[in-house]
Amino acid sequence: MNPVEIIRKKRDKQKLTREEMEFFIKGYVDGKIPDYQMSAFLMAIYFNKMDFDETVVFTDIMLNSGVVVDLSDIPGVKVDKHSTGGIGDKVSIILAPMVASCGVPVPMISGRGLGHTGGTLDKLDSIPGFRTNLSLGEYKEVISKIGIVMIGQTKEIAPADKKMYALRDVTGTVECIPLIAGSIMSKKLAEGIDALVLDIKTGRGAFMQSKEDAIELAKTLIAIGNRFGKKTIGFLTDMSQPLGNAVGNWLEIAECVECLRGKDVPDLMEVTYLLGGAMLMLGKKASSIEDGIKICKEAITSGRAYKKFLEMVEHQGGKKEYIEELSKYPKSKYSKSIVSKSDGDIVKIDALEVGLVGIILGAGRMKVDDVIDPKAGIVFYKKVGDSVEKGDTIAILYCDDEEKLKQAEKRLERAILVATEPCTPPKLIYAMIDEMGIHEWKQ
Amino acid sequence: MNPVEIIRKKRDKQKLTREEMEFFIKGYVDGKIPDYQMSAFLMAIYFNKMDFDETVVFTDIMLNSGVVVDLSDIPGVKVDKHSTGGIGDKVSIILAPMVASCGVPVPMISGRGLGHTGGTLDKLDSIPGFRTNLSLGEYKEVISKIGIVMIGQTKEIAPADKKMYALRDVTGTVECIPLIAGSIMSKKLAEGIDALVLDIKTGRGAFMQSKEDAIELAKTLIAIGNRFGKKTIGFLTDMSQPLGNAVGNWLEIAECVECLRGKDVPDLMEVTYLLGGAMLMLGKKASSIEDGIKICKEAITSGRAYKKFLEMVEHQGGKKEYIEELSKYPKSKYSKSIVSKSDGDIVKIDALEVGLVGIILGAGRMKVDDVIDPKAGIVFYKKVGDSVEKGDTIAILYCDDEEKLKQAEKRLERAILVATEPCTPPKLIYAMIDEMGIHEWKQ
Repeated sequence: MNPVEIIRKKRDKQKLTREEMEFFIKGYVDGKIPDYQMSAFLMAIYFNKMDFDETVVFTDIMLNSGVVVDLSDIPGVKVDKHSTGGIGDKVSIILAPMVASCGVPVPMISGRGLGHTGGTLDKLDSIPGFRTNLSLGEYKEVISKIGIVMIGQTKEIAPADKKMYALRDVTGTVECIPLIAGSIMSKKLAEGIDALVLDIKTGRGAFMQSKEDAIELAKTLIAIGNRFGKKTIGFLTDMSQPLGNAVGNWLEIAECVECLRGKDVPDLMEVTYLLGGAMLMLGKKASSIEDGIKICKEAITSGRAYKKFLEMVEHQGGKKEYIEELSKYPKSKYSKSIVSKSDGDIVKIDALEVGLVGIILGAGRMKVDDVIDPKAGIVFYKKVGDSVEKGDTIAILYCDDEEKLKQAEKRLERAILVATEPCTPPKLIYAMIDEMGIHEWKQ
Repeated sequence: MNPVEIIRKKRDKQKLTREEMEFFIKGYVDGKIPDYQMSAFLMAIYFNKMDFDETVVFTDIMLNSGVVVDLSDIPGVKVDKHSTGGIGDKVSIILAPMVASCGVPVPMISGRGLGHTGGTLDKLDSIPGFRTNLSLGEYKEVISKIGIVMIGQTKEIAPADKKMYALRDVTGTVECIPLIAGSIMSKKLAEGIDALVLDIKTGRGAFMQSKEDAIELAKTLIAIGNRFGKKTIGFLTDMSQPLGNAVGNWLEIAECVECLRGKDVPDLMEVTYLLGGAMLMLGKKASSIEDGIKICKEAITSGRAYKKFLEMVEHQGGKKEYIEELSKYPKSKYSKSIVSKSDGDIVKIDALEVGLVGIILGAGRMKVDDVIDPKAGIVFYKKVGDSVEKGDTIAILYCDDEEKLKQAEKRLERAILVATEPCTPPKLIYAMIDEMGIHEWKQ
């Protein structure tokens, strides 16, 4: 087989065979096919897409380029959640211990933030001592002992995806649904899960801003999961404004800890309970999503979820005292309040802009090697739909650099809109999606 | 500027600025932008094309990536010809000395053959001693002394094109009209010419098989030439069957020598005279193309053209005795005749297949580092439209390898069609194309 012929075939909209895809991707991982041929191939895929069969084959090749963890000796239905990412999306950190505390094992391999969206891994890393870089041996040990583990992609997991993702990032070939779906699912299927719940974000702060794209991605992910024998369902949720109140790594951990202790942050907990309910249902610990939601709420009020979280922190090397006493954590040198300049309703908090303001503050990264300040970020005191009076604090920004804080303040002010006409909060859960199709979700 | 942003801009069909194109291409030549970003960029251009302004800028950047030869101290209007290539297309070798012998200096930088089409450079290289690798200093010396020079692309000429062409060849990004046009014109404009005549081939054996593509390429090349202040016109000519009788490097040189000495090979000489007439017209040595054709015919019958050819061979180190006595040249070990199996008319000689048969025989290359046998090839004794009787020789194949000869024979037999219905030869000159548009050409 000739790599140029395979590139030309995809370029000319012909369907690729499994043998051709294997030759190309394995050859790339082995170093026989150079970066420049892979990037031309990826750009051809960007334009001509892959059909579902090709996407399944693509996922399978990436999945099997590394270790597929076997958790079959751990009792129970192992369920994970994946979110396509957003601003303030800290759901996993409450959700995983909550679900695990209800008897469903949650083996979770997460990613870092890049661009305007944050990453679960960066948030966990802000906990002093917490190790997200467990080996696969340690990963299996922790999940089998306490029913929960949260780590980052190891070098054994889908190495083809790791190499290709790095190349896509620098060649303008990220935004392509079959490639995104293959990349996500090859990692999730390698974790050793039996079922998967997806949180597909849509709106200004989401990777897929339009609902059409988000639905297409969701359908592809769900179809792949089910094709591989892992029951997969998803929810289409809003990412027009940040989720919850905190944006920034430790600030989000602190918010999660408060929620695990029983604080109600309405939008954040609504999404968390919904996904938790679905996970319990898939994990055979609830008869329905509604039943699962009830059990999850009880896990929070009883303190069981918080206890499971502390257990995970301890087993992954984290210093529990920072969790138990949040105020022990170091604070940013500078802070700045955004106050309302008029009476009215908050009608917009532009999630994308908030994400970019987060990067200015040091809470996110634009390039993979940018260093993150775990203390930096924003805490919102008002959300879309809330009424404000002139002088009310809408948000507080935290940063160690005075100059950047000023920049961030100006930009955040422009991202928030207060108007006199009354505004209702945006719909949070748009739809439930499964193999059958898209179903309206009654809140 | 960020290379990924520029790739994404082209990918998203936005027009690139000169600054962005310069940043990208210069960065690539300097090694600051890696192959893998350039190949993604090229594939994005393949899909979204470049508009005319972008193509002009692209050509200009490639042209100015190297030396632009200054021939202004040589008197006269310097005129060159470029052909998009075909099978048996040996026109340049008769044309350049013919035109130069009429007082129009012809500075010609040619390319090698790749794939099914031959290259002028490989043909010239078959002349013992002939040096096509002159330095730019020698190039200027020869053209100023004898009014003609024929060499290959030196490392100083459009190095950006050289580097990019090599990458396009291995990434499936060759077949893109703006890239092809920029590549051709950046080299032609670097030669030091004042005007250019193009021979745009169309049909089975041409790079642009369809007339529509050939016309689009011709229009682009002509517009670029004129934009750069070099009067450029073109002819759309047939490449459905090989041009002339010989296919193969030395075999074609021998045919050219015979034509220069006055032999009439009708299709070959019709194209040669037409292009020569146009070159004399552009070179201000004829009042019209028709007038130029008359002068060219006189250059052949008088022996002036042949004398100029011998002069060039001598000045570029070639051994004149092989030209003066063609039979001195070594012969292939084996030969094989294709004879007609029935009475009838030749209705097809598939030029593409003939080109591929040439490669089997050793007359062409599939990869840039394939070695060519200058003796190998095919000589046709009949062309499309000729009548044959059973047993007539249609062609003779030459090769040093008996096994390959057999393979080639079988394939060539299938490429030639004899039928009982009478057949007229194909139209040879389809149209003349200039800045104004496409004009029918009355033969």
